[in-house]
Amino acid sequence: MYISESKLTARYAETDQMGIVHHSNYPIWFEVGRTDFIREMGMPYSEIEKSGAMLPLIGLKCTFKSHVGYEDRVIVRTKIKEYNGIRLTFYYEIVREDDSSVITTGETEHAWTTCSLKPVNLRKYRPDLHEILVKAIEK
Amino acid sequence: MYISESKLTARYAETDQMGIVHHSNYPIWFEVGRTDFIREMGMPYSEIEKSGAMLPLIGLKCTFKSHVGYEDRVIVRTKIKEYNGIRLTFYYEIVREDDSSVITTGETEHAWTTCSLKPVNLRKYRPDLHEILVKAIEK
Amino acid sequence: MYISESKLTARYAETDQMGIVHHSNYPIWFEVGRTDFIREMGMPYSEIEKSGAMLPLIGLKCTFKSHVGYEDRVIVRTKIKEYNGIRLTFYYEIVREDDSSVITTGETEHAWTTCSLKPVNLRKYRPDLHEILVKAIEK
Amino acid sequence: MYISESKLTARYAETDQMGIVHHSNYPIWFEVGRTDFIREMGMPYSEIEKSGAMLPLIGLKCTFKSHVGYEDRVIVRTKIKEYNGIRLTFYYEIVREDDSSVITTGETEHAWTTCSLKPVNLRKYRPDLHEILVKAIEK
Repeated sequence: MYISESKLTARYAETDQMGIVHHSNYPIWFEVGRTDFIREMGMPYSEIEKSGAMLPLIGLKCTFKSHVGYEDRVIVRTKIKEYNGIRLTFYYEIVREDDSSVITTGETEHAWTTCSLKPVNLRKYRPDLHEILVKAIEK
Repeated sequence: MYISESKLTARYAETDQMGIVHHSNYPIWFEVGRTDFIREMGMPYSEIEKSGAMLPLIGLKCTFKSHVGYEDRVIVRTKIKEYNGIRLTFYYEIVREDDSSVITTGETEHAWTTCSLKPVNLRKYRPDLHEILVKAIEK
Repeated sequence: MYISESKLTARYAETDQMGIVHHSNYPIWFEVGRTDFIREMGMPYSEIEKSGAMLPLIGLKCTFKSHVGYEDRVIVRTKIKEYNGIRLTFYYEIVREDDSSVITTGETEHAWTTCSLKPVNLRKYRPDLHEILVKAIEK
Repeated sequence: MYISESKLTARYAETDQMGIVHHSNYPIWFEVGRTDFIREMGMPYSEIEKSGAMLPLIGLKCTFKSHVGYEDRVIVRTKIKEYNGIRLTFYYEIVREDDSSVITTGETEHAWTTCSLKPVNLRKYRPDLHEILVKAIEK
């Protein structure tokens, strides 16, 4: 199964008064990972949306095991956990770049929809995208 | 059990190119709800932090059932789901202000810590806060 | 001249590791003020956009005189500084709710455009909106 | 004079319902540029803060000339515009990575302070940092 790696450096604006990256940034970092994963699969998500398919979230889970601070460097590891043509679940692991210790893990569950947010079965609606996903899972 | 209600209007900056509030804002809206809940319990969280106790997240879950757009008005309903002196879980329901339809539900799990992020048992570390929480649950 | 007032409470997510609200939030607070100003003029900005006119920023200025922290309450005072049918400049003053001391002042300059971001003269493109603005300035 | 270059890809969360990166993200992108500039000068800003000096904003200006969308790649060019020991002004230019067309320019004015936000003259308070800045300007 394909795993993408995205390198990020914590921004000052992402810290909070606890002196660590605020938890609301992890869903955004997951999204950066997901964007890289999809682009590396062969079709940028920006083009997928322009071509009429969308992938809104229906669920989000994060487990916070440790924390990072300003200028700390992390890697977001992204892979597909489940896919059935209708729903797609990504799994993420955010680790420190220096010692690979795990900071946060999480998953996002998505539904494929039209651009007016109507759910679709990708197998029929967009067999080209379905094929790309199936290949990414089998890699 | 006490339930607080926080009124919010979706900000333009909170929307994304799908034309809806981006999912990463819901953890922030939960936090607004949690802040109001804790203040209404009798001790603002800003004072709790100054007095040496912190409540960082260890887990986050969201289920996205519908979506809202710019200027839509919502209510965040917040309550305590579980508390054992060491860990505290809040449950949230975000509903439209006009028809009370549910947009997002979620929960955040927290650990009580010192200001250097060392876990503590609130029962011993801060019996005053522990009492306030127990009363909020029994209300 | 009309001045709107918007009440806000600083969110935890808006703080940074300096323990104060991060400066990037002030443009968002200005936007909250602008949204309230426009709604109070008689036509919500969400409806203006749906009706085919947009108001993207072409300039932004902020002067930071003091700072606020988590749970601090502020008021955003918004008014129109300049308007000539093509460009529109808002002026903002963010003050503490308790003592009215000034935290931040700023202005945003906007151009009226079509929904494909082509500049227009509102006097001809949307005389109805032009009238509403002129009335808000004369109030 | 030294100019740093920081590469960024627009995040989905940074877009708004106009389909472009929301203007409030540019101050954050400036900050990413400033962080890289300072690190490349020889002392990461995260260490500067730990060592007792801070650089809060006192002014911000942005001019928006064009816009970028999701997954667009940009470069933030950062340099020092003015420095007198007490105040420091950075100038930024954000350009598209593909054709170098200018998206946004801006500047941020800062005051050097102690960690309790009291203004200081860096020449006396921290001659080591003062020297590093003077060298970056003369480069």
